[in-house]
Amino acid sequence: MCTERTPRVAAARALTRRAGREKAGRFLAEGAQAVREALAHGRVHDVFATAAAAERHPDLLATASAAGVRVSEVTDKAADGLSETVSPQGLVAVCDLLDVPLETALAGSPALVAVLVGIADPGNAGTVTRVADAAGADAVVFAGDTVDPHNGKCVRASTGSVFHLPVARTRDVAAALAACRAAGLSPVAAHGYADADIHSSARHGGDLRRPTAWVFGNEAHGLDEATIAACDTALRIPIYGAAESLNLGTAAALCLYESARARAME
Amino acid sequence: MCTERTPRVAAARALTRRAGREKAGRFLAEGAQAVREALAHGRVHDVFATAAAAERHPDLLATASAAGVRVSEVTDKAADGLSETVSPQGLVAVCDLLDVPLETALAGSPALVAVLVGIADPGNAGTVTRVADAAGADAVVFAGDTVDPHNGKCVRASTGSVFHLPVARTRDVAAALAACRAAGLSPVAAHGYADADIHSSARHGGDLRRPTAWVFGNEAHGLDEATIAACDTALRIPIYGAAESLNLGTAAALCLYESARARAME
Repeated sequence: MCTERTPRVAAARALTRRAGREKAGRFLAEGAQAVREALAHGRVHDVFATAAAAERHPDLLATASAAGVRVSEVTDKAADGLSETVSPQGLVAVCDLLDVPLETALAGSPALVAVLVGIADPGNAGTVTRVADAAGADAVVFAGDTVDPHNGKCVRASTGSVFHLPVARTRDVAAALAACRAAGLSPVAAHGYADADIHSSARHGGDLRRPTAWVFGNEAHGLDEATIAACDTALRIPIYGAAESLNLGTAAALCLYESARARAME
Repeated sequence: MCTERTPRVAAARALTRRAGREKAGRFLAEGAQAVREALAHGRVHDVFATAAAAERHPDLLATASAAGVRVSEVTDKAADGLSETVSPQGLVAVCDLLDVPLETALAGSPALVAVLVGIADPGNAGTVTRVADAAGADAVVFAGDTVDPHNGKCVRASTGSVFHLPVARTRDVAAALAACRAAGLSPVAAHGYADADIHSSARHGGDLRRPTAWVFGNEAHGLDEATIAACDTALRIPIYGAAESLNLGTAAALCLYESARARAME
């Protein structure tokens, strides 16, 4: 039985902080769904489970053991220390970081990519990753000072999608947009004050069937002028009622699915 | 200066619970945005503000006073007791309940309505209300054992939209669907396992331009079979990638905007 003082547990605990993740090159996938996805798609070093979690998910632990992953029982207190959520699930996997170089993520003629610029809330970043995955995107780029895709709340909100498609990180937003262009993608800014909206654009022959990199900005402040100017065009979500705006997750869903829709209708 | 023991504050505190709201016929709108919307669209009895909040929002308090609303300064502790959120904003309005009878909400040939069945999370219910407002819906119906639209987290997540369009409540889901039909709306179930999806439907001439009541189910369990059977059709969101599903807010946004899109393209 491992406690919070067991060296491997103490080392894993450091992965709840970004600096600890960067140093170790590893992160934590918490909860049955994330652990399942990690075992299917990621490189997993350790699985820690409380007695209760082990009883609930014998299949998962068997899968891990069969794959040569070390499975260790931990105390409730040790499990709490490995959790980044309000209600710890008692089950966590230690995985290699997922992100790949920008050029790798954008290799192979991508048709749809989401670029996140300055997204502050890890739950939002995870939701956009999930939506991008659902819409059939080929990659997600975490650009500028966007949160870490390996943040526990981001992994959780993505419900496994961080494992499904290539994720790249770069501090340099201009470099991200340049890489998108080099990969044949047209960068389109999702911008609440754009003149054109995704429906009027479709009505007037705007072509979201072409390879598109949707660029999404900070929840509160949106995209800065330089980033908008660096895109080929800017589009907003049309508001047909009295709402002032939409939240980032729903706005990103409508943008990415408008592209998916255009391609599906071909 | 009012404290938590001042009778009006104590009475307002009872409104943080559903039973208290039902008994008094009133609810709390918390935070500057919600208070502004309440003053613009609702019937407000009291505004309580801490000294700090009064200093931040003199315009709002002036608007309230000019409208004959009683404005009272409260202690931080009293304000905390009136808050349903983790970070109390020190500003709250006591308002009359917003919901109207089902027939009133559906009066006047509605073209787009959202029906929420068994939505458990108030944040989700608020997000769907916000999205329905943005998509130009004519009303939102809280049906079955869906959370109370006046729950503080729902009001907050709606970012004012609960004040923008008629909200009705009924425990009786069959009655809600019957009322939709009587109002000329075709009930369409949003159902993750439906045969047709919103894009294939559009490709094959499915007509979301006709007046539609989108019916959304519980976050975890979706809609029950009886409710799906009581709708004219069921549609899902197409998943183009590896994601298993979408969350309720993004799924509702895609459904409601598919209807808004069909009407905008006419």
